[in-house]
Amino acid sequence: MLKDFEKKKREDKDALGEEIKKLRERLLAQQQLLRDEKLPVMVLIEGWSAAGKGSLIKELISEIDPRFYNVVSPPRIPESELRLPFLHQYASAVPENGKIAFFDSGWMDSAVAGFMHHEITKSEYRHRVRQINEFERQLRNSGYLIVKIFLHIDKEEQFERLHALAEAPQTEWRVTREDLWQHKEYKRFMEAFDDFMEKTSDTAAWHILDGSRKKTAVRDALKLLVDRIDRGLADGKYIGEPYEEEFPLKDMPKLKDVDLSPTISDDDYKKELKKLQSRLSELHNMIYRRKIPVILCYEGWDAAGKGGNIRRVAYPLDPRGFDVQPIASPLPHELNRQFLWRFWTRLPRTGHITIFDRTWYGRVMVERLEGFCSEKDWRRAYNEINEFERTLTDWGAVVLKFWIHIDKDTQLARFTDRQNTTEKQWKITDEDWRNREKWDLYEDAVDEMLSLTSTKNAPWYIIESNDKKYARIKTLKIIVKALEAACDDHFRQIVS
Amino acid sequence: MLKDFEKKKREDKDALGEEIKKLRERLLAQQQLLRDEKLPVMVLIEGWSAAGKGSLIKELISEIDPRFYNVVSPPRIPESELRLPFLHQYASAVPENGKIAFFDSGWMDSAVAGFMHHEITKSEYRHRVRQINEFERQLRNSGYLIVKIFLHIDKEEQFERLHALAEAPQTEWRVTREDLWQHKEYKRFMEAFDDFMEKTSDTAAWHILDGSRKKTAVRDALKLLVDRIDRGLADGKYIGEPYEEEFPLKDMPKLKDVDLSPTISDDDYKKELKKLQSRLSELHNMIYRRKIPVILCYEGWDAAGKGGNIRRVAYPLDPRGFDVQPIASPLPHELNRQFLWRFWTRLPRTGHITIFDRTWYGRVMVERLEGFCSEKDWRRAYNEINEFERTLTDWGAVVLKFWIHIDKDTQLARFTDRQNTTEKQWKITDEDWRNREKWDLYEDAVDEMLSLTSTKNAPWYIIESNDKKYARIKTLKIIVKALEAACDDHFRQIVS
Repeated sequence: MLKDFEKKKREDKDALGEEIKKLRERLLAQQQLLRDEKLPVMVLIEGWSAAGKGSLIKELISEIDPRFYNVVSPPRIPESELRLPFLHQYASAVPENGKIAFFDSGWMDSAVAGFMHHEITKSEYRHRVRQINEFERQLRNSGYLIVKIFLHIDKEEQFERLHALAEAPQTEWRVTREDLWQHKEYKRFMEAFDDFMEKTSDTAAWHILDGSRKKTAVRDALKLLVDRIDRGLADGKYIGEPYEEEFPLKDMPKLKDVDLSPTISDDDYKKELKKLQSRLSELHNMIYRRKIPVILCYEGWDAAGKGGNIRRVAYPLDPRGFDVQPIASPLPHELNRQFLWRFWTRLPRTGHITIFDRTWYGRVMVERLEGFCSEKDWRRAYNEINEFERTLTDWGAVVLKFWIHIDKDTQLARFTDRQNTTEKQWKITDEDWRNREKWDLYEDAVDEMLSLTSTKNAPWYIIESNDKKYARIKTLKIIVKALEAACDDHFRQIVS
Repeated sequence: MLKDFEKKKREDKDALGEEIKKLRERLLAQQQLLRDEKLPVMVLIEGWSAAGKGSLIKELISEIDPRFYNVVSPPRIPESELRLPFLHQYASAVPENGKIAFFDSGWMDSAVAGFMHHEITKSEYRHRVRQINEFERQLRNSGYLIVKIFLHIDKEEQFERLHALAEAPQTEWRVTREDLWQHKEYKRFMEAFDDFMEKTSDTAAWHILDGSRKKTAVRDALKLLVDRIDRGLADGKYIGEPYEEEFPLKDMPKLKDVDLSPTISDDDYKKELKKLQSRLSELHNMIYRRKIPVILCYEGWDAAGKGGNIRRVAYPLDPRGFDVQPIASPLPHELNRQFLWRFWTRLPRTGHITIFDRTWYGRVMVERLEGFCSEKDWRRAYNEINEFERTLTDWGAVVLKFWIHIDKDTQLARFTDRQNTTEKQWKITDEDWRNREKWDLYEDAVDEMLSLTSTKNAPWYIIESNDKKYARIKTLKIIVKALEAACDDHFRQIVS
């Protein structure tokens, strides 16, 4: 009897080994197909402390060619030191097309552990859950496959594992206070994990795997992954439909109705400039100390005066506390990722100012009009951008967006001047003339963009720039006012 | 009399303003020329606390188009937390061709302040000075213009400035304990600055500017910068001559003399593999706790078995503590910088392992043979690489380099097998066949590379891989032995 039992056990074990081997071979074959189809895959492995996340990943990657995957395991640096939005470390690690990224715990851990450790409030937790749903949906909509695994062990199993780790001198250091506390609060953590998973399975389902038997977990994870990839390959790269969420919007005029006649006298300009720059310098100091991040976005017609405007804003700032990010056409490794990736990776730290000279709005202007993305892509972008900016303002950022506006005649005069002035010739290219021919198409696109993305939290300002000096003063005034308000808010939060 | 005096003073001030304006215009005109000539410029601004480094940079950049420059001001994170070589933050911030980077204090501060604050020993300080000289020379040799400014104020001036900052409630926070301590130890700092500047003016001269009068300092800095750029533009992009330094080298056989017959039986392979992987797993744990960084470099013939070898090494490692960096052809933004930049930015943190699947040695193999760089460039690279690797081992890294070796017949057999096996076809490209035709040229290049870069601190190992299993066991043994030794050394350092 016992002999038969043992035999059966051995056979089962062999069969499991065989199954794993076959699944690994399938995964190996899929590598190349993923590359051909340019499908990016994100595998999130979350779970209990000591559930075996690391060794599961080890088994998953063991046969994959290193060119096709990477493992993301965020360093445990407190957010207060990172000084970036909590999603930043994940958003900046999304894989390129055709590659797999394994996240060794990720956004779930950031949200749940953050809340359980009282690092964030209940309302911040809710914000994070919403941001996570948006993040996953945006990735899904631009073709990412997302596979989410939760590795589960029960309280006794966790006790035994932590105990075993803590007993052996060579592994004892691995057991952290957080692990012990999680074990002590097992029941509350269980509720929190459950709550989180319930609220975040819209885009990608959660798969709970039994972590108590390692080999079975490996088999199940491999099977899940291989099946999902097969399905993804069969369906082809997914492009999401446009969707609309109600964002509170500011009313914006049509560009053609904007009065471009305002001017300023030279004397007033000098006086105002000096006063505003000096105030801005003080405010820069304040936002630095209050750790408020500031994001200034510049868009506008060619030759509208963006560069000179930016320089007047930048001049009073301490160079240690700001940077200007000129945005050109995306590079190959940028094109190979979701379109917001190259902006996630350029965000300021808290207390710093980043000035974007052109922005993510390229998606609904040049990329739309030149056909660099599909219609679904740019139509979806309005909401994706609104969500992205809300993530930034939720984090505490001041986000201001300027459309530097001129009329067609003024542009012609400035183009001609650039053409005829040696030192300015580099500023004018054939592309500028070509864009000019599409003025009306651009105007429609800009009108649509302004009307759909001027949210209350990240509003657009149209800056009349036929008189560049007037434009600079107006921009500076808006910035100064917004920073004053942000510092006031911050003050109120502290005293309330 | 007084009236005349006042008039003269006003005239001088106006003249200075006029001069600054003209210099700014020249700098503005140079922007475009720098871009056309693809000249990168690095401006290092060092100096006393409160000497006005930040505001000098502010004045220098005020008219430059943001597309042409950026300001690098490293966050004040202790090196023990950064866990990277001290030069990393500067080496990873070198500008692209055609752009200017302003460093708001940099490698001088890291070396001198580190030493004065007793964060590094005298001998580490000397290493840093040497590394800095190598860093500057390497950049200079690949065409970078380097301008170094030290902003000087005397002790009384510093006292007044720190005092003024500390007195005003809005600036008081800016005065740090380090500033006060520097002031207290003014004389010793002066000697240390002097010593540093004396030892680091071979590649790029130091320019000491009087920081006590702001406008004059701006004028002088602008003049210096504009003159250096003019000269750089006139001379054209500099390409450095090859140079040779004596590194202690390990004797290497010629590839043709390597006996490729060794094999291992399947049984021995399985036994050894298990034993070595299990030991490697333990050692990974140890190097993590001792914070020893490990860099494993793989080069070898196409189809030599690099991938499978890497997988066997990676398998026992905790995925949270290692990564594999597959190195393909450089991307545009990588080509636009010194060739080691893309490796500086891929280094492991202390306690982590990075496996490079192909490496910086591409410079003296494919780039040499395909003419992707000039002869001077690849000839210089032997020494540049030796210096780079010494910087890594000085930092405490274990650097091991493997040449995975097979003969021509074995390659042909494997190519043919890949060609005929559907799942393996992606692994073989026309380029592989073309490279094969150049076998003899490659063999000469590899022989030269092995003989010139197998330093005692970062040696090459030739891995006989006609039998892939034998190759894996040999590689694992070398790694295990080296990590054992590194842990021993570390232990000795602690107890001695």
